Amino acid sequence: METRISSATREVVIGGERPTVLIGERINPAGKKWLQEALRSGDMEAIRKEAFEQAEAGADVLDVHVGAFGLDEVELLPRVVEAVVAEVDLPLCIDTTDPRALEAALGAYRGKALVNSVTGEERSLAAVLPVVRRYEASVVGLVQDEEGIPGDAERRVQIARRIVERAEAEGIPREDVVIDCLVLSVGAEASSGKVVLESIRRVREELGVNVVLGASNVSFGLPDREVINGSFAAMAVLAGATSLIVDVARVRPYVLAADLILGKDRFARRYLAAYRKRKSAEA
Amino acid sequence: METRISSATREVVIGGERPTVLIGERINPAGKKWLQEALRSGDMEAIRKEAFEQAEAGADVLDVHVGAFGLDEVELLPRVVEAVVAEVDLPLCIDTTDPRALEAALGAYRGKALVNSVTGEERSLAAVLPVVRRYEASVVGLVQDEEGIPGDAERRVQIARRIVERAEAEGIPREDVVIDCLVLSVGAEASSGKVVLESIRRVREELGVNVVLGASNVSFGLPDREVINGSFAAMAVLAGATSLIVDVARVRPYVLAADLILGKDRFARRYLAAYRKRKSAEA
Repeated sequence: METRISSATREVVIGGERPTVLIGERINPAGKKWLQEALRSGDMEAIRKEAFEQAEAGADVLDVHVGAFGLDEVELLPRVVEAVVAEVDLPLCIDTTDPRALEAALGAYRGKALVNSVTGEERSLAAVLPVVRRYEASVVGLVQDEEGIPGDAERRVQIARRIVERAEAEGIPREDVVIDCLVLSVGAEASSGKVVLESIRRVREELGVNVVLGASNVSFGLPDREVINGSFAAMAVLAGATSLIVDVARVRPYVLAADLILGKDRFARRYLAAYRKRKSAEA
Repeated sequence: METRISSATREVVIGGERPTVLIGERINPAGKKWLQEALRSGDMEAIRKEAFEQAEAGADVLDVHVGAFGLDEVELLPRVVEAVVAEVDLPLCIDTTDPRALEAALGAYRGKALVNSVTGEERSLAAVLPVVRRYEASVVGLVQDEEGIPGDAERRVQIARRIVERAEAEGIPREDVVIDCLVLSVGAEASSGKVVLESIRRVREELGVNVVLGASNVSFGLPDREVINGSFAAMAVLAGATSLIVDVARVRPYVLAADLILGKDRFARRYLAAYRKRKSAEA
């Protein structure tokens, strides 16, 4: 199954036997004072820089999130979308929990966006899916509902199924739903990694839809996060994840290695090109 | 299923829900002129140094291989085994294709060794299994036969099954057989990684025995090997490998991460201890 998203000029396809699609996570003010400041003062230069650097690092798609205390998302999100689009020609993953901000951002975007996200909560399904349908976007479905994030794979797959079915009922084809199986830090919850990998495998097997993973949380609170994130990314790709939301500059080498190992990179072309680019940047 | 191996003083258990067992690959003259020279002149200092450093880096077991042009394995292998045992108290993986060298080395070893290896070839089965039985050792079974290494998982699993059955017929319990599914470089053969990961999964599922993987070959001929080896190790552990033969200092962080992600490292104790040790070594 293939999920197609696009900017005005470029299409990115998630799934099939294609290489893993990498979504850059860095346009997000959480934990970044300087980015919060920039957004508060309307300074788009910082945003453009993050966009440019992630594209240089090999991001296929950029996640755009501006939710933070004191920021008006409805006003800010479309402006940030416009700033990013002016800088790079990558498709965007528009990341907000506010349906009005989502509408404003989609209105400012040309192409087919990936909306991040809808959950299995009734309120979220009712608010987000009609907007996704109207703008003919794709949507990330998070496997959580009114009771939170289930601790086992079985219920996560159930929520994923409900989201896919509700989307189809709303007129959104299932190939436009990408499920995020939601990993928590393995430092806080030892079974977190195992449950999410099992959920990915089952969502792929039972529902057939594409899977994305916001993969960085897995190492939250632990040292040497790159090693955990790199290992986890490789394992997630083996389990069936077809796209990852990550710090691209740090995690991409491991994902390229995983794609190479799984036969998704003939003659190691992508792996070698990325290696040469890193080396020439270092020289 | 648990495979127990031991030195005179220490037992290592492969399998169950235990952390992945790491077998240090570095006592091996292939491609190391200085080690070939040392072996030729009978200088055991180089061997002791490799043994010590791998133990320091966190190896659970050490592979000992001295096969190289111009070296007399029958004379040399037991001497090297004695030198290593005098330096570190880790169980050994005795690595030779010469049944006489194997006997000589097992005769010089106290504890239960892991013999590396027998293949599915009739000549190998007939020569190696009786020796393994007599010394009550464990044995690595390589999934190759008279026709070479099969290109598909189905035939690799068949060879693994034949080795396990022949071992049992010889009086070696199946928990003392550890299957190596044999990875080739993904640079040379694009399907190599996929086939070996599928073979691991099936050997674990269908035969239940433990799986070891000489994991470094996967990146042969490619740059930035640590990234490929680390990613592959994590994927192999997810697929079901319970031990790996690797350059421990380089690959162990990724394997500890994989064990942590799979819930085999409660409270991240092993991961954090290894991190602190690396940091204090750097300081």
